[in-house]
Amino acid sequence: MRMYDIIEKKRDGQDLSEEEIRFFINGYTTGEIPDYQVSALLMAIYFQDMSEKERAVLTTAMVESGDEIDLSAISGIKVDKHSTGGVGDTTTLILAPLVASVGVPVAKMSGRGLGHTGGTIDKLEAVPGFHVEITNDQFIELVNRNKVAVIGQSGNLTPADKKLYSLRDVTATVNSIPLIASSIMSKKIASGADAIVLDVKTGAGAFMKNLDEAKELAHAMVSIGNRVGRNTMAVISDMSQPLGNAIGNALEVEEAIHTLQGNGPKDLTDLCLTLGSQMVLLANKAKSIEEAKQLLTENLTNGKAFEQFKTFLESQGGDPSVADNPELLPKTSYKIELPAKSSGTVAEIVADDIGTAAMMLGAGRATKESEIDLAVGIVLHKKIGDQVQEGEALLTIHSNQKTVDQVKEKLYTSITVTDKSEKAPPLIYDTITE
Amino acid sequence: MRMYDIIEKKRDGQDLSEEEIRFFINGYTTGEIPDYQVSALLMAIYFQDMSEKERAVLTTAMVESGDEIDLSAISGIKVDKHSTGGVGDTTTLILAPLVASVGVPVAKMSGRGLGHTGGTIDKLEAVPGFHVEITNDQFIELVNRNKVAVIGQSGNLTPADKKLYSLRDVTATVNSIPLIASSIMSKKIASGADAIVLDVKTGAGAFMKNLDEAKELAHAMVSIGNRVGRNTMAVISDMSQPLGNAIGNALEVEEAIHTLQGNGPKDLTDLCLTLGSQMVLLANKAKSIEEAKQLLTENLTNGKAFEQFKTFLESQGGDPSVADNPELLPKTSYKIELPAKSSGTVAEIVADDIGTAAMMLGAGRATKESEIDLAVGIVLHKKIGDQVQEGEALLTIHSNQKTVDQVKEKLYTSITVTDKSEKAPPLIYDTITE
Repeated sequence: MRMYDIIEKKRDGQDLSEEEIRFFINGYTTGEIPDYQVSALLMAIYFQDMSEKERAVLTTAMVESGDEIDLSAISGIKVDKHSTGGVGDTTTLILAPLVASVGVPVAKMSGRGLGHTGGTIDKLEAVPGFHVEITNDQFIELVNRNKVAVIGQSGNLTPADKKLYSLRDVTATVNSIPLIASSIMSKKIASGADAIVLDVKTGAGAFMKNLDEAKELAHAMVSIGNRVGRNTMAVISDMSQPLGNAIGNALEVEEAIHTLQGNGPKDLTDLCLTLGSQMVLLANKAKSIEEAKQLLTENLTNGKAFEQFKTFLESQGGDPSVADNPELLPKTSYKIELPAKSSGTVAEIVADDIGTAAMMLGAGRATKESEIDLAVGIVLHKKIGDQVQEGEALLTIHSNQKTVDQVKEKLYTSITVTDKSEKAPPLIYDTITE
Repeated sequence: MRMYDIIEKKRDGQDLSEEEIRFFINGYTTGEIPDYQVSALLMAIYFQDMSEKERAVLTTAMVESGDEIDLSAISGIKVDKHSTGGVGDTTTLILAPLVASVGVPVAKMSGRGLGHTGGTIDKLEAVPGFHVEITNDQFIELVNRNKVAVIGQSGNLTPADKKLYSLRDVTATVNSIPLIASSIMSKKIASGADAIVLDVKTGAGAFMKNLDEAKELAHAMVSIGNRVGRNTMAVISDMSQPLGNAIGNALEVEEAIHTLQGNGPKDLTDLCLTLGSQMVLLANKAKSIEEAKQLLTENLTNGKAFEQFKTFLESQGGDPSVADNPELLPKTSYKIELPAKSSGTVAEIVADDIGTAAMMLGAGRATKESEIDLAVGIVLHKKIGDQVQEGEALLTIHSNQKTVDQVKEKLYTSITVTDKSEKAPPLIYDTITE
């Protein structure tokens, strides 16, 4: 078998066999197949796509290129959630204790990552004492006992995907549905999930700017998951404006606390209930979506979800009193309001730009070495469709610098107030199950 | 400027600017841009094509990546001919002295190359004493005195093309019209030609199997040549069956001698007159194609072309008496006839397979290190459309091995005799001037 023939076959629009895909992934992982042949194949895949079968085989080959996490010692169906990423997406912090509170085991492997804010681990580390440096045995024991635990990424998971992603990143082949879908799914599957709920974002702040692309990606991932024996479904949700109100690490933890007490922003709460009820259903802890949603809604109001969050924090060294007193979270020296320049209706809050503003404040990492300021960020007071008076605060900037003129300028250009009427965008566009 | 953006731009179907193409070619030549980015761009070009302007800029950038031959010391318009390659293509051996005989300066830089038979230099070396190891000054002096000389390739011509070709060869991006056209044209232009006549072959034995592709390639090359200020035209000729009758090095020299004496095979003679008259016209040595053809036809019958050939051989150390006594050329120990298995009309002689058979006898090089047997080869006695009787020789195998069963088997499968009527294919399909 020769890599040349595999490139030519895909270039000519033919399907690659399982043997050919495995030859390519194994050869690339070991370094026998050079980058320059792989980048040519990736570009051919960009143009010629892959069949559903090819995508599933590619995913499996990438999973098998490295370690696979064994969660079989955890009783019950392990359901993982994955979001394609956006701005102010606090869902993981809420969903983990929320679905655990109805008995779904949540064994979350998480990272720090690059982006507008830190990853789930960074956010949780805003709680004094909380840490994810636990052994695999401790992790499994915690999930079995408390139904929820978070561990930092370890082991050599999907090395083929890591190499491929680095290469795609410098050869303009990132934006390809079969390659995105197999990359995401290989990581989820290698992490040991039995079932997967996907939150595919669409809109200006998302990787998939338009709904059709988001649906295509969602369908691609659901198809891969189900083909490789992991019950998978996807929700397509809005990311034209930030989700919830808080963008920043400690600020999002505080928002998660309010949400777990039943006092969260409506959009964030609704999305958590939507994704959570799908997780509960896949975990066989309810017979219908309606029943699942009811269980979760109850636990947001009866305090069970909130208690579960405190137990979770405490079990990993965190100070649970933070949940009762969010004032204990890291705070900034300055809180600066951004007044509206005119009265009217908020028509646009470009999520991407709000994220960039948060990053300018120091909330996120530009490189792996960057330090994060956990306290800084932005809290929106108005969302699309809201009325605002001239001089009224659109948002509050939480900063450790007194002067934030550049950030303000960025924020003003990203928010549009109109004198026409505007409606809030829909939160959920679609649900994809096949 | 970043290579990433150039890949993305071409991937998205946009035209690259002159600055971008030069950035890519210069960066790749110096090694600053890695293979894996270039192969991704090549695959994007494969799918998205290049505009005529982009192709011309790419060609110029490749020419300027290395040395350029300066033929300005040779008086007159230097016209070069290039063939896209086929089986039994003896035209260069004939055209060089033929057009020189009417005053067109022929300053030929040639190579050995890989293929079914050797290159022009290998063939000429079948003449005892002939050599191409001459200095540039000698080369120019010879062309000025005798109108024709051949020199081996030297200097660092089009290093960008060499690197690109090696990469295309292993990434399934050879078969792309803009890349083929710019590669061929960059070499011709760097070799110093003022004007270029292209012989684009089509049919089973050619790189371009069908006529539409051949036309597209011809048009692409003619457009590049004219855009960069080299008067360029192309003839599209048949390569469904071998050209002429001889396939092999010394055998083709012998056939060239007969043709220069006016006794060559009709197809080979006609193609030489067609290509040659275009060369004469581009060199301003005739006012019309008709006049040019008449001048050349006269010189084939009045002995002037033949005399020119002898002068040419002698001026580069070759024994000119070989031209009068082709028996002095290297000969094989065995001549083995291939009898027809049935009577009928020859319907097919697959050029590629005949070439492979010649290679099996030792006429060509598989790798740069291979040794060539100058004497071996095949001489066809029948061409498509000819009648043949059962037992009559279809061809003669010139071999230095007594047993050639495998070669015979290959030849039998490549020649079809039918009981239906068959016509010879047209020799010239088209003439492309813009």
